[in-house]
Amino acid sequence: MSECVFCKIIKKEVPSDIVFENERVIVFKDINPKAKVHLLVVPKEHITSIKEIKEENKTLIAELIFVAKKIAEEQNLTGYKLIFNVGREGGQLVDHIHLHLVSGDLREMP
Amino acid sequence: MSECVFCKIIKKEVPSDIVFENERVIVFKDINPKAKVHLLVVPKEHITSIKEIKEENKTLIAELIFVAKKIAEEQNLTGYKLIFNVGREGGQLVDHIHLHLVSGDLREMP
Repeated sequence: MSECVFCKIIKKEVPSDIVFENERVIVFKDINPKAKVHLLVVPKEHITSIKEIKEENKTLIAELIFVAKKIAEEQNLTGYKLIFNVGREGGQLVDHIHLHLVSGDLREMP
Repeated sequence: MSECVFCKIIKKEVPSDIVFENERVIVFKDINPKAKVHLLVVPKEHITSIKEIKEENKTLIAELIFVAKKIAEEQNLTGYKLIFNVGREGGQLVDHIHLHLVSGDLREMP
C-alpha cells in the first residue's frame, strides 16, 4: 500500500496536477492523457478495485460520479465519458480505484 | 418520455434480453454489442443523463455500479469496463441514463 502511486499523490509525496480535492476525493490530470481532457477522480481511501467495493463504500462511490459531473460542468464539457477500468484485463493499470473523466478528441480507450 | 425506448423496455412494451431486475434497476444485453459481453445497467427512473443527476439520486447511481459489479462476479469476468457516456458528444445515444458493462474482445468504444 505504501507503494501505491495514487496514495503517494494523495499524500503529496509525488507531484500531480490537482484539479479538485476534498476530504474524501482528489482529482488530478492523467499523466498519459488519452483525450483533450483526461482527469482521474480518485477516492483518498485505498480501495484496490471496483471488485473490492463493499456496502460501506456506497456513498464514496457515488461521490466519485458526482464530483466528476461537477468538474465537467465547471469545465463546460458538453460531452464526456466516465470510465472505471476493472482488473488488468479491463485496462486497470493502478490498483487504487480511479474514475476516468475523458472528453474531446479521444485518441484511444483509457 | 413515453417515446423513450429504455422506458418501453422497462415496461416490457419492447422486448429485450433481461439479465437482472429489481425494483429500481434493470440490466439487459445491448442490442448492438461492442464486446463479447455488453450489458446496459439502467435505472427504472427516467433520468436523461448524468448531467441531470441530483443529490436524491445518489443511492440509485451507486446501486448501478454495485449491480454491475455483482453481475460481473456472477459471470466470472476477471476484467471489464464500466462506462457512462454523457451527452451526444460523449457517445450517449439514448437519453436515459445507462451504464455500459463491457468485457472481452472490445471491438470499439461503446
